[in-house]
Amino acid sequence: MTEQDGKKEKIIEVALKRFSHFGIEKTTMNDIADDLNISKASLYYYFPDKNSLFLEVAISILSDQLEKQQKSLENANSIPEGLMQMIEARLAFAEQFHMMRIQDLQIDYFYKDKRFIELREKIREKETVIIEHFLDAGIERGELRELDAEKTAVTLNDIFMGIGISRLHICSGPNSLELSKEVVDSIRNSLKDVIDLIYNGIKK
Amino acid sequence: MTEQDGKKEKIIEVALKRFSHFGIEKTTMNDIADDLNISKASLYYYFPDKNSLFLEVAISILSDQLEKQQKSLENANSIPEGLMQMIEARLAFAEQFHMMRIQDLQIDYFYKDKRFIELREKIREKETVIIEHFLDAGIERGELRELDAEKTAVTLNDIFMGIGISRLHICSGPNSLELSKEVVDSIRNSLKDVIDLIYNGIKK
Repeated sequence: MTEQDGKKEKIIEVALKRFSHFGIEKTTMNDIADDLNISKASLYYYFPDKNSLFLEVAISILSDQLEKQQKSLENANSIPEGLMQMIEARLAFAEQFHMMRIQDLQIDYFYKDKRFIELREKIREKETVIIEHFLDAGIERGELRELDAEKTAVTLNDIFMGIGISRLHICSGPNSLELSKEVVDSIRNSLKDVIDLIYNGIKK
Repeated sequence: MTEQDGKKEKIIEVALKRFSHFGIEKTTMNDIADDLNISKASLYYYFPDKNSLFLEVAISILSDQLEKQQKSLENANSIPEGLMQMIEARLAFAEQFHMMRIQDLQIDYFYKDKRFIELREKIREKETVIIEHFLDAGIERGELRELDAEKTAVTLNDIFMGIGISRLHICSGPNSLELSKEVVDSIRNSLKDVIDLIYNGIKK
């Protein structure tokens, strides 16, 4: 790692703490420079604006999250167990980083910068591929009937995200920053029922 | 119908036109009084505030919508056909009244008045009961296996709403008033896949 890479990494690490505690709108580049004990000019040398820094923070935690989802599927003994563990990983992520509103790039703010839209699309695609491979493995070992794993993965990902967003939305309002234990439990229970229902149709 | 009822109904009818064209935030009680050619005072005699009037408008169109959903299920020849027709009824409603953001009471505005939250809950319950009876009939005529119709109805309703909200949200942003043909098509296609997937698990 070059010295410059090390410095960038340190900035991302410190910025993550601010963003995850106060959210993007209430965090300033000044706050982050102060936390790092560097001048604003030298922060801007590495990141031309707050969105660019936030984007790197988002990429960093979403990459970790993809890895966790992947592992939760790899360690599962059955399709429903794996899908539920994947959902647990997503719920834990939503709880940890809710102030950043990043689990689905929920806030209007993000829609002004198309890099965030692109990032979300990329993450969704990768999640779908992870699920697809997991389903393929299930078909191969005879747990699942022959099915279109790609299409089923897209549908499952749609449902997982859809129920998450709609529950958040219904319980807390579209722009709320709250994510109570009740909401998380209600998303979990709802998705458990979905998996039971669908598993019945795809098992061999 | 008493004269007073007739007058109230006329107000609701005229207000509906305004609200569905301009949305709730951009419509004033003045606008509605002008449309009706009555004084603001006499409008306030029937409805104490804009929210009370909007609530009556919402109840009126949502009752119609429940009836349409019910009919779409009654006229269906099979479970997947009925569910798709129910979804078509919902999509048509979303397209027609999108400016009112009422299909799922999407905007922050509604969260300040708990009558809207209660109305939404009531509508969701009624939709779930309609689906439950439809599934029960499917079990009775041997199209579906024995299943917990109530629980399955809740799950289906969750999925229908979840995918609708998340697609709107993802394609247009959480606070957008747009509802393009592309978004509607993408919701329809996604839900068609869901129904195919689930039907496989619940048919006999």
